Amino acid sequence: MNLRQADRLPVPADFAGPPTDADRARWEEADRTARPRRLARLRERLDRDGIDAYYGVRHEHMRYLTGFALRDGEDGAASGQFIVGRDEVVLFADSRYTIQARRQAPETRLENVYGDLAERWPELVGSVGARRVAVESAFVSRATWERLAAAAPDVELVPIEGWLEEDRAVKEPAELERVSAACAVADRALATVLPAIRPDRTERAVAMDLEWAIRTGGADALAFDVACLSGPEAALPHGSPDDRPIQAGAVLLFDFGAQVEGYRSDMTRTLFMGEPTARDLAIYELVARAQSAAIAGLTDAVRDGREVSGRAADAMARDVIERAGQGERFGHGTGHGIGLAVHEQPNLGKRAPETPLPSPTVFSVEPGVYLEGETGVRIEDLVAFDAGAGRVERLTLFPREIVVVGQ
Amino acid sequence: MNLRQADRLPVPADFAGPPTDADRARWEEADRTARPRRLARLRERLDRDGIDAYYGVRHEHMRYLTGFALRDGEDGAASGQFIVGRDEVVLFADSRYTIQARRQAPETRLENVYGDLAERWPELVGSVGARRVAVESAFVSRATWERLAAAAPDVELVPIEGWLEEDRAVKEPAELERVSAACAVADRALATVLPAIRPDRTERAVAMDLEWAIRTGGADALAFDVACLSGPEAALPHGSPDDRPIQAGAVLLFDFGAQVEGYRSDMTRTLFMGEPTARDLAIYELVARAQSAAIAGLTDAVRDGREVSGRAADAMARDVIERAGQGERFGHGTGHGIGLAVHEQPNLGKRAPETPLPSPTVFSVEPGVYLEGETGVRIEDLVAFDAGAGRVERLTLFPREIVVVGQ
Repeated sequence: MNLRQADRLPVPADFAGPPTDADRARWEEADRTARPRRLARLRERLDRDGIDAYYGVRHEHMRYLTGFALRDGEDGAASGQFIVGRDEVVLFADSRYTIQARRQAPETRLENVYGDLAERWPELVGSVGARRVAVESAFVSRATWERLAAAAPDVELVPIEGWLEEDRAVKEPAELERVSAACAVADRALATVLPAIRPDRTERAVAMDLEWAIRTGGADALAFDVACLSGPEAALPHGSPDDRPIQAGAVLLFDFGAQVEGYRSDMTRTLFMGEPTARDLAIYELVARAQSAAIAGLTDAVRDGREVSGRAADAMARDVIERAGQGERFGHGTGHGIGLAVHEQPNLGKRAPETPLPSPTVFSVEPGVYLEGETGVRIEDLVAFDAGAGRVERLTLFPREIVVVGQ
Repeated sequence: MNLRQADRLPVPADFAGPPTDADRARWEEADRTARPRRLARLRERLDRDGIDAYYGVRHEHMRYLTGFALRDGEDGAASGQFIVGRDEVVLFADSRYTIQARRQAPETRLENVYGDLAERWPELVGSVGARRVAVESAFVSRATWERLAAAAPDVELVPIEGWLEEDRAVKEPAELERVSAACAVADRALATVLPAIRPDRTERAVAMDLEWAIRTGGADALAFDVACLSGPEAALPHGSPDDRPIQAGAVLLFDFGAQVEGYRSDMTRTLFMGEPTARDLAIYELVARAQSAAIAGLTDAVRDGREVSGRAADAMARDVIERAGQGERFGHGTGHGIGLAVHEQPNLGKRAPETPLPSPTVFSVEPGVYLEGETGVRIEDLVAFDAGAGRVERLTLFPREIVVVGQ
């Protein structure tokens, strides 16, 4: 491993530009074309289990299957729930959302449901001719379950989990394009703010600069709140930026992402505010080596046509860190799938399934080493994994070389 | 009613400044003092129903009872769940959150629970000596419920709903202070951006300006995503800002709020981009009249010592709009409580309870009239309602007079 310092700071022009209107139109068209196939896959599961309909409550599933998109944090009461019957899809959208739903989900039948779901339930399931309904039991509350069961005692509620999650783990080309576009927005945004990172500024101020660069640089929204953590705070995998001035000589960890047409990116870079300490450099090199080992291992496997599990992929990174005696300081998994949600299938971790990874898919590779109270380093890229095409491709293109800022 | 145009645009100095460090320290201390009382109230409910412990899953309840605060959208797996026993509070925080939890919730016993809740359940409830546990059945999934029941068949899960919601509706003085401080941050932020609102700008650009003014003006975060809707889009009560340039002569509706130490504000102002049309002016005056009527009616009632229900408060605004023949165009409720959540008890609406409003409390008063495809006006203020003190006080201080921008 020969990790050198970058010759110059990355600049925005090093990365792809923001998505164009033509891109967005193409993705919309691709979704429209794909929805019947996505619904057909769900209906095959229903057929297999002798179930007549699926009652959906997750916003990501709704967007995937119907096109109707609610923003993060938009609760929508019953809006954003839906029933997939054999022949049609019924989308619940109260009066606040009907115009939007008509635009985005023209293939569905809209029903105005607002706080009276249990009352309407017999009629709604009856309208698609259902007697056995698959219900997302990990996302429907116990109280709602009991009310629906009582409202239509002759309709059987069949608890199901993970169907759509499994389907969504396999990505269509236009889904990967959007994740990739979101990666480019994030890459560019980090390059944009580098010159403004100076030791007199606070984590919070720099995090806001980065957020701004993402949101004015082609993203529809953040993928999640920007983390910008310096020095010992970088050892908190879920810390939040504070009004601490960034100290010279400290690491500076950014974990952030963009949303492009609902698809998210996720990347982490650990920069150095001025000359790195020998300790931090050594950790950085170890983490970079672990990350490269995992990506190389995945690449070799698909090239040779060998199957890889999420557990095996995790081990590729973890072994490097364990062999360096730092295994205890890498407390989280190596990666996670991403798409309409920040965290989705597949899971790359110590307890992940030993079944082969889905394909084509996209996931993060993000080993880290954290010394509580001292420092922390994580390097995270998204990679597209395509066993059929024998290809593993990094979608995050911001360099992984050592980047020193504030000089 | 004599609605006149403001003599000058409001300026930031018209409103209270951002919270100081002394304010924040005082609020923290007030919470520390209040938590034992809040827990005692919950334990009285447990006693009354012969229950040994309460299993909590809502982040707002956790913050209220323990001090541990997760940001919006931070899922935290099992982190952010807790058990209130007779003698102690057990807080679940996996390794990512332990340092933060130790800082924020020093009175609790921390348990590292991560994805293995059902496995740990018998030991966790056993550690507080519980055989009957109250469970938030509207917020615990059916799948989790079944797993917990199976993991400890001798522990009875008692479904409960709305206990903490009812307690939290009654606000302590330091809670009202934070809502009020959040209102001032929002008032100032709108005043800050007024000069930059011009017809050549888009809704999205203006919304981002306003968001920035909130987040750099003393807020910890937004209360919710800023809505900035112009012309016909203002008729969509939950539309989102678009890349539409704002048209001269159009209404411009802002719905937004700030968070200060977890407490939220919520306000709506409908401004005019240049000279208002006669139609828009007439609607504006009607909505302003309805809002004033509700606040005046509430004020009279508490002054006279009469009880008021959420349903009666709603009618005070609704009657004005119905008498003007626009009842069909006011499709939502008159208001909602606010605090650690944007929407909480009490509810002011047509189907709200006829029991007296809680007191002291704080809620929005936000009538609106929407002409689909044409225009919409909503005016929303928060008011503190204190029956005991005979006082109703507006916390939103931005003028409700007609404000014309872009000139």
